[in-house]
Amino acid sequence: MSMAGTSEKVIALCGGIGGAKLALGLYRLLGANLSVVVNTGDDFEHLGLNISPDLDTVLYTLADLADPERGWGRAGETWQFMRAMRDLGGESWFQLGDLDLAMHVQRTGWLRSGRSLSAFAGHTASQFGITARILPMSDGAVRTIVDTDEGSLPFQQYFVRRRGEPVVRAIRFNGAQEASPAPGVLDLIADGSVSAIVICPSNPFLSIDPILAVPGITAALMTARAPVIAVSPIIGGKAVKGPTAKIMEELGIANANSSIAAHYRGLIDGIVIDETDVNDCPRIDLPVLVTGTMMRGLADRERLAGEIIAFAGSLVQSSGAMRAGGRR
Amino acid sequence: MSMAGTSEKVIALCGGIGGAKLALGLYRLLGANLSVVVNTGDDFEHLGLNISPDLDTVLYTLADLADPERGWGRAGETWQFMRAMRDLGGESWFQLGDLDLAMHVQRTGWLRSGRSLSAFAGHTASQFGITARILPMSDGAVRTIVDTDEGSLPFQQYFVRRRGEPVVRAIRFNGAQEASPAPGVLDLIADGSVSAIVICPSNPFLSIDPILAVPGITAALMTARAPVIAVSPIIGGKAVKGPTAKIMEELGIANANSSIAAHYRGLIDGIVIDETDVNDCPRIDLPVLVTGTMMRGLADRERLAGEIIAFAGSLVQSSGAMRAGGRR
Repeated sequence: MSMAGTSEKVIALCGGIGGAKLALGLYRLLGANLSVVVNTGDDFEHLGLNISPDLDTVLYTLADLADPERGWGRAGETWQFMRAMRDLGGESWFQLGDLDLAMHVQRTGWLRSGRSLSAFAGHTASQFGITARILPMSDGAVRTIVDTDEGSLPFQQYFVRRRGEPVVRAIRFNGAQEASPAPGVLDLIADGSVSAIVICPSNPFLSIDPILAVPGITAALMTARAPVIAVSPIIGGKAVKGPTAKIMEELGIANANSSIAAHYRGLIDGIVIDETDVNDCPRIDLPVLVTGTMMRGLADRERLAGEIIAFAGSLVQSSGAMRAGGRR
Repeated sequence: MSMAGTSEKVIALCGGIGGAKLALGLYRLLGANLSVVVNTGDDFEHLGLNISPDLDTVLYTLADLADPERGWGRAGETWQFMRAMRDLGGESWFQLGDLDLAMHVQRTGWLRSGRSLSAFAGHTASQFGITARILPMSDGAVRTIVDTDEGSLPFQQYFVRRRGEPVVRAIRFNGAQEASPAPGVLDLIADGSVSAIVICPSNPFLSIDPILAVPGITAALMTARAPVIAVSPIIGGKAVKGPTAKIMEELGIANANSSIAAHYRGLIDGIVIDETDVNDCPRIDLPVLVTGTMMRGLADRERLAGEIIAFAGSLVQSSGAMRAGGRR
């Protein structure tokens, strides 16, 4: 699957749907040279099952099993289980497809038997024929908690059950301080042969910050030799996905690429913004790649992935060497 | 659903498929006056789920949700989950349908939260609109173990995974001695207004013996005022279901109604055998009802249920009173 001239090693940090789109573009260019570190702050226990929504979205997307219309879950999914749950008077606010259930049942059994989430991710990627390395950010339990005007809500309660309607006041990552990066994550980031570390256009506050909250990961990114490039989720002066725009507004953050650059300041070496936002450049004190960042189809994703890799290369060339470590 | 003249209270003891057929016949005559005490020796934990095959068969059968062709599981069942499990390299020897899974996930959550199997059975019967009382024999874990020429196998490993092929040397019920009857079971059996206690034509060794092994149940049956009637699973000199015949042979027990009568001796007041086996009567030292016991359709089940209730009534009449307690 790797294309000629793109045998660079790349690491992507990502959340679910939006991030997974770019991860797929990178995967199609890089194959086994891609490693993806995935947010697990959205993970939760539901109906006795361990559910990892972002990890599954990445696995389904890279395995070409994802539903292209719905944006989440599997293509060809059926909902017999949900129907029977409702007949039994069971909880039915979180949609679990019949195919998707196999992932949760397998993962739950795997974790109960003392094996790790990262081992499960590796095993499942292999079963799906994915050659890229897929890693959860941590094998420990980090749980995103959204403090809202309705009180503190675990992420899925806020996002799915309450449809993201409560007003967000703050976002916390329970358990992050006690968690460790999954085995391999720090070594990957420190690997001198990595050409680029890409922060995918996931929600910075909900999908990327939990990764950065795991002790050791931010420090490793700041001292990594490879340039760190963030792809902004803002297009045309607003977030592509509604929840991101709403949350930024509620947190008092302007819906602008400069806000994203400011959020990642000290961590990133460059940012990628959409061409419709070219006027934001003067307010961004960093190298900027201006290009089309809306990913409608596979061609968009591959093109954007290639441009990001080239942009990272240009940053190294312009500074005359890979970074010696440390950020401005 | 209760028919005129059949408002007697009846208790049925049963296992899965064969027993559930008669339980349905009784239910159609008696409605809320029927109580069913179900074998849980076949229960097991699989893929982190608590599975109660016989209880579910009784619930599905009485709720008219059972698959009439396959003999187990739900009508309209689909198998997407199993397909996805195989793709994940998961265990797939035990078939779990998409609809059926809801029952296992709900039950597992229910038990994990500290609620009992009997409470789950009652809740589920109510959700399904079943007016009969459905009780597991015990809320404790009793596990049928089959000692075979391949070693000791938990029931489902023997029956499903190994397709009942190993030669049976003995059958044990792990945990039975420490188990208690589910709340209500002993009171039901001791209830002076019960007209009949029916042992359904389930496998005596695998499906009824576990019920009788729960301390207190056999003693309660022996002192019950209501006559205890067993319906033999033998028809035409052999067991209707293959496994029963094979097991009886391997245990050195003749495939005959007299063997069934001998097995239940001291416990039952009468036995029901098929008309093709009328010649067995001289070898049975008990009142015998000879009738058609093959249950092909609903009409067969209702007729047989009615005849059994009448037979129980005749035993009471001929002895001039309900039993004062104690068995010959």
